[in-house]
Amino acid sequence: MKDYKKEKMLYNATRKMNYKQLDGFAKNIRKYIYNIVSKGNGHLASNLGVVELTLAMYRTFNPEEDVIIWDTSHQAYVHKLLTGRWGAFKTLRKLNGISGFTNINESRTDRFIAGHAATSIAAGIGYALGDKVLEKSRSIVTVIGDGAFTSGMALESLNQLKYQKTNIKIILNSNDMAISNNVGTLSTLFSKIRVKKSYNTIKKYIKESLNDSEIGQDLELILKKLRNGMKYSIYSEPAGFFEDMGIKYYGPVDGHNIKELELFMKCLKNYNNGPAVLQVLTTKGKGIEKAEKNPSKFHGMSIKKEGLSYSKIVGKTLSILKDYRYLAFTAAMTSGTGLDELKKEAPEKMIDMGITEPSIVTTAAALSLTGILPIVDIYSTFLQRAYDSLIHDVSLQSLPVLFLLDRAGLVGEDGPTHHGIFDIAYLRPIPNIEVLTPLDGFDLANMIYTSIVKEINKPRFIRFPKEYYLGKEEDLFKSLKEVNYNWKYLKKSNSNIYALAVGTLSKTVYKALKDYEVNIIGVRSIKPIDNNIMNEINKNASIVITYEEGILQGGFNEEIKNKKVYAYGIKDFVTHGTREELLKICELDLVSIKTNFEKILERVNLS
Amino acid sequence: MKDYKKEKMLYNATRKMNYKQLDGFAKNIRKYIYNIVSKGNGHLASNLGVVELTLAMYRTFNPEEDVIIWDTSHQAYVHKLLTGRWGAFKTLRKLNGISGFTNINESRTDRFIAGHAATSIAAGIGYALGDKVLEKSRSIVTVIGDGAFTSGMALESLNQLKYQKTNIKIILNSNDMAISNNVGTLSTLFSKIRVKKSYNTIKKYIKESLNDSEIGQDLELILKKLRNGMKYSIYSEPAGFFEDMGIKYYGPVDGHNIKELELFMKCLKNYNNGPAVLQVLTTKGKGIEKAEKNPSKFHGMSIKKEGLSYSKIVGKTLSILKDYRYLAFTAAMTSGTGLDELKKEAPEKMIDMGITEPSIVTTAAALSLTGILPIVDIYSTFLQRAYDSLIHDVSLQSLPVLFLLDRAGLVGEDGPTHHGIFDIAYLRPIPNIEVLTPLDGFDLANMIYTSIVKEINKPRFIRFPKEYYLGKEEDLFKSLKEVNYNWKYLKKSNSNIYALAVGTLSKTVYKALKDYEVNIIGVRSIKPIDNNIMNEINKNASIVITYEEGILQGGFNEEIKNKKVYAYGIKDFVTHGTREELLKICELDLVSIKTNFEKILERVNLS
Repeated sequence: MKDYKKEKMLYNATRKMNYKQLDGFAKNIRKYIYNIVSKGNGHLASNLGVVELTLAMYRTFNPEEDVIIWDTSHQAYVHKLLTGRWGAFKTLRKLNGISGFTNINESRTDRFIAGHAATSIAAGIGYALGDKVLEKSRSIVTVIGDGAFTSGMALESLNQLKYQKTNIKIILNSNDMAISNNVGTLSTLFSKIRVKKSYNTIKKYIKESLNDSEIGQDLELILKKLRNGMKYSIYSEPAGFFEDMGIKYYGPVDGHNIKELELFMKCLKNYNNGPAVLQVLTTKGKGIEKAEKNPSKFHGMSIKKEGLSYSKIVGKTLSILKDYRYLAFTAAMTSGTGLDELKKEAPEKMIDMGITEPSIVTTAAALSLTGILPIVDIYSTFLQRAYDSLIHDVSLQSLPVLFLLDRAGLVGEDGPTHHGIFDIAYLRPIPNIEVLTPLDGFDLANMIYTSIVKEINKPRFIRFPKEYYLGKEEDLFKSLKEVNYNWKYLKKSNSNIYALAVGTLSKTVYKALKDYEVNIIGVRSIKPIDNNIMNEINKNASIVITYEEGILQGGFNEEIKNKKVYAYGIKDFVTHGTREELLKICELDLVSIKTNFEKILERVNLS
Repeated sequence: MKDYKKEKMLYNATRKMNYKQLDGFAKNIRKYIYNIVSKGNGHLASNLGVVELTLAMYRTFNPEEDVIIWDTSHQAYVHKLLTGRWGAFKTLRKLNGISGFTNINESRTDRFIAGHAATSIAAGIGYALGDKVLEKSRSIVTVIGDGAFTSGMALESLNQLKYQKTNIKIILNSNDMAISNNVGTLSTLFSKIRVKKSYNTIKKYIKESLNDSEIGQDLELILKKLRNGMKYSIYSEPAGFFEDMGIKYYGPVDGHNIKELELFMKCLKNYNNGPAVLQVLTTKGKGIEKAEKNPSKFHGMSIKKEGLSYSKIVGKTLSILKDYRYLAFTAAMTSGTGLDELKKEAPEKMIDMGITEPSIVTTAAALSLTGILPIVDIYSTFLQRAYDSLIHDVSLQSLPVLFLLDRAGLVGEDGPTHHGIFDIAYLRPIPNIEVLTPLDGFDLANMIYTSIVKEINKPRFIRFPKEYYLGKEEDLFKSLKEVNYNWKYLKKSNSNIYALAVGTLSKTVYKALKDYEVNIIGVRSIKPIDNNIMNEINKNASIVITYEEGILQGGFNEEIKNKKVYAYGIKDFVTHGTREELLKICELDLVSIKTNFEKILERVNLS
């Protein structure tokens, strides 16, 4: 991982290239990224779209001196290649390799860790405020896609730029896509680019007409306003929006023409009268035909896994139940959450509100008050954004909302920004809610089935990891049935050792421990706990071992009171790598579970 | 609390009044609100500002049939008076009395619990989506102040209104104030109201000129654009912003003229072609001279308490240390957090970013990377909104940011939306951070002093409740000194019973238990725990009793492993009432602590 630190800063070399050489270099970059990423690991389309943008930017701004912040940073591969990580790029997203996102511990040109969308403008303000105190003058540039502008964090920060007296420069990467298609009105606005050709003619005409007039002195002012109004209308619609926010607008410029890009980048660099935005029109997947045609498919490439993903199980179960009265929300993750399955069958039941997690959860709370069941299908890590909505809107009002927490646990290659390891701990303290943890694909499908078919009467969370069901698909869906959420004895024994494994981890724990004298229990709900089994444990257990794919502090293990507890789970942020590698690091794999169990037995025998 | 359910829905009566009678009634309402609230309990200025607005609205819309959602709902007193709570209003914010905010359990006309700002538009979308499925046709109206528009949640929801095909009607209460002055560019925009008088003349003139012209067919389109541009410029600036968002704009209208208000309300009611906004210009504190003149002071009235509030201790300590390199952030709470003390001394050190908690925390993270210490001074309950920023931006990057968590614990009259009871539980799981809990005002001041004077090297949270220091002010500040955060023995004993009291609760616990044979320990940090004392407890204790002003599940008490623990703290959401009353309900008052301790002793003696 450390080699890249000795690598050359390639962006310096690009400064000596002519435009023909640059075009050739751009092709090389595309080929290299494609070769590495298309093998199934990383973000492809978004990075192919910003090759020329990054080249032009790094010929204008200096990534070592200026502060360049890449929003979400799943489009920062070109940046990485130009700033000392061309060789290291082969290790992208691999254990001990470089991160798929910017990382302050990886390069001094990575100014902020990002992985969740829409943080870059706020981060830019932080840098700007510090520079002001320190009287540093350097450019602070954030590169942000139009998709991120659905998020309140982007919008609220934008509204502060002028007020906080910053000169932040925003590069608005307009590709008219979030991860799938954009939603919300602003994205439509951002794509309304008008031709400029007739502007001068019109201006001349109006001015002449008004000069003749006798309307009076007010007119000069009105003319100015007219001109502004007209400029917005004719030049490009987004200008009006940004200038309302007090932000100087440049563009739009063709994002694949390096020469033109540089011209505009220079304008942006030289403008120091306040915040400014440059709108760059790019094509996601540019240069690779199939990625251009289907950028949503080529957004994230992941290694093809066998079996049916749990996300697909969710989508298919919902589509089977499409005649029930519910609406399913996604935050710009139709495909990732498997909701595309529902969308095919019943598009009106799927509500994509963009990257607006807090709003989605509050909207779901209110929907529940009309008697329609809201289903919020969301990655565990992103629900962190809606924590206040969970407490203040859903739980305090005790409203039936069904949350499907996808990718709860270790997600693998996306790494620490994306692991869903906090949900058990941040949900346990919230009153009035239920947190369920299905043991396998069947259990997941059935718990969803039950939650929809039988009415739920309070907020319910069903958490499941990034796993795959390996059996026959029809078996899963033909046997859908109502289930409770009692814990399940996977093995009964006379031993006073109890192994409690949360959710799907119970499969591994069972495999690891089934030949020992130990009680093995599959924990199917974190909240409430199963009082019958818990009473038994309180009566009989001398040692309790808990396993959970989540952070230990505040986690399930803390439900066990007044007993000797060995708690296995996650102790800290976890790096990137395959899910299997990371489970091993966290000692949640079969071998570690076995080894650790034997150590416990040894200690028991010694004492 | 239940009486108001039998009270008359006064809004019906107002429909039979003429405008003179209405003006008289408005005066009565103001007088009544002033009489109740000025005694020191509730939100005054915001409610005085919306008397006519509410009257006009409820003569146009029907609060029992339509859905009226009051954003933040600290301006919903008039609403309460008109919807069956005139008599009950005397019990406002009192234990067992009516809530200071809307509450779905209090009246069917209260459509959503609110207390935190900017949730109303998201909630409106939820109602609208449900009504669409159920084919219900009723108006959905949200009333929201311009101050709430600094919040990303308001902005991101706004951007969904048209896209989600809703007909939501927004009443924008423009009083040019959040709680103190507004910040951000939009608020300036919202206040740029232009005169309309010359519009018609100009329109006629331009139209004539253009009809004569020979510029060609494009012109019709351009004319339309010009007209739009002009309308925005001349009518009122906010129109452009809202129409960019796809929202029909009405207004501005004088918010204290019932007749005019009604005209516009009718327009709003009849427009069903998509979302619409009506901008109403109101004066905060209207009708009560001193409140009009100083609306910030009269925003919230609270019963005058003796002593120096902990918030003031924070503000004063910071102002004493104003020569150190830090910046202190507030989310529209300059006065509430005591930062007005700093603002007086060093205004450039205080950054008010409006109601943008997630952005503030991310901005603070980035500021930290420049070497300047960021201080985020925020109410515990509002930090819930920035949970993802805490994890993803501050803690993952392990950045030194100092959080001052004000009103951690029970806040009293504001009730369940505002109690800061979750922070211990939601902070414990986050890696790389410190959570300190000072034992008293001295300890608070010294911990802040130490954090600024000695550099902190990771994120640090200092949590303190809504309490008062009763000693001499100079004693507090002249003795500022560096302190560690080891736990403190308040009483040592040979007993094997250990009482661990978190933060300021230790004062009460000491008073309650000092005459018993028990070890009493003041817990000054939740994270890390004090290993020395914890080892001692592990060795010697047979019974541990914990006391914390926070939710028990996930709380400090769960740090105690493998011991008999009696945990006292908060079990569920807590109603409103005085802080003292609520502490008693939660058995965290002196008498309860004593009584419960004796019960424990009894049990020990029996066993």
